[in-house]
Amino acid sequence: MSETSIKASMIDRDIASVQEANKIFYDAFETLDIQKMDNLWLQDDYVKCVHPGWEICRGWPDVRDSWVLIFNHTHEIKFSVCLLDVTVKADLAWTVCNETIATKDNGKWLEGRVLSTNVFERRQGAWLLVHHHGSPVLATASQEEETDEPVT
Amino acid sequence: MSETSIKASMIDRDIASVQEANKIFYDAFETLDIQKMDNLWLQDDYVKCVHPGWEICRGWPDVRDSWVLIFNHTHEIKFSVCLLDVTVKADLAWTVCNETIATKDNGKWLEGRVLSTNVFERRQGAWLLVHHHGSPVLATASQEEETDEPVT
Repeated sequence: MSETSIKASMIDRDIASVQEANKIFYDAFETLDIQKMDNLWLQDDYVKCVHPGWEICRGWPDVRDSWVLIFNHTHEIKFSVCLLDVTVKADLAWTVCNETIATKDNGKWLEGRVLSTNVFERRQGAWLLVHHHGSPVLATASQEEETDEPVT
Repeated sequence: MSETSIKASMIDRDIASVQEANKIFYDAFETLDIQKMDNLWLQDDYVKCVHPGWEICRGWPDVRDSWVLIFNHTHEIKFSVCLLDVTVKADLAWTVCNETIATKDNGKWLEGRVLSTNVFERRQGAWLLVHHHGSPVLATASQEEETDEPVT
């Protein structure tokens, strides 16, 4: 194996690991599982989280509180996540995702779209989330609709 | 000078350089100066930009087009930028900013608030912008108001 192909293989492996960490994030969100969030986030002062439309949450205690608040107020949520890109630079990586989110309200599924930036830092071989920034995509009239079924 | 203080001094210098790059970004935006944007952004395929409410722009040509479009449709804009935090990790850094933006429309200044994540990459000693994600902060009734004067 040439040096170039070893390097390419390492990059592929890094990208796959970041994709896996990114998947864990959305699994934790969809299953409203605070323990999975606890395990995924770097529990440090400099981590930050911007939920769509919210003020910023700074530092792990604030970030964690925001997830607890969201999870406590969410009955059912479904994600369809399109991972648009992964960039890995040494021990940092960021993903950009297009999230279609369906939440159940009074028996009806209401859909919305969010673009997110997720920054991960590698610590002892594990990719930990250090920054999440989610923002609403303004829907056109034809995109915003109520259905009886969640996104698939 | 001890090794620790040399390291601290290098970190301070890095943070100052990133702050300066972040300032250049907002200067370029406020003065609607596409050449400053050209110089600040890394002109590569993997750079991305999310303007508040927009779909994502991917790759330098798309990102540049978005700035040209914004600049062509903006008559006057004023920023009050509060840099909330700078994180530097080797040759990557990200800033988080609270932007109060005033735009002039029919002689009236209209204010809005945006939270932004800006990711910079160091290339040959210069911090270049590789990712900008801006998203609207939902204003309360008391925060959203028209004035005759821009933000200061």
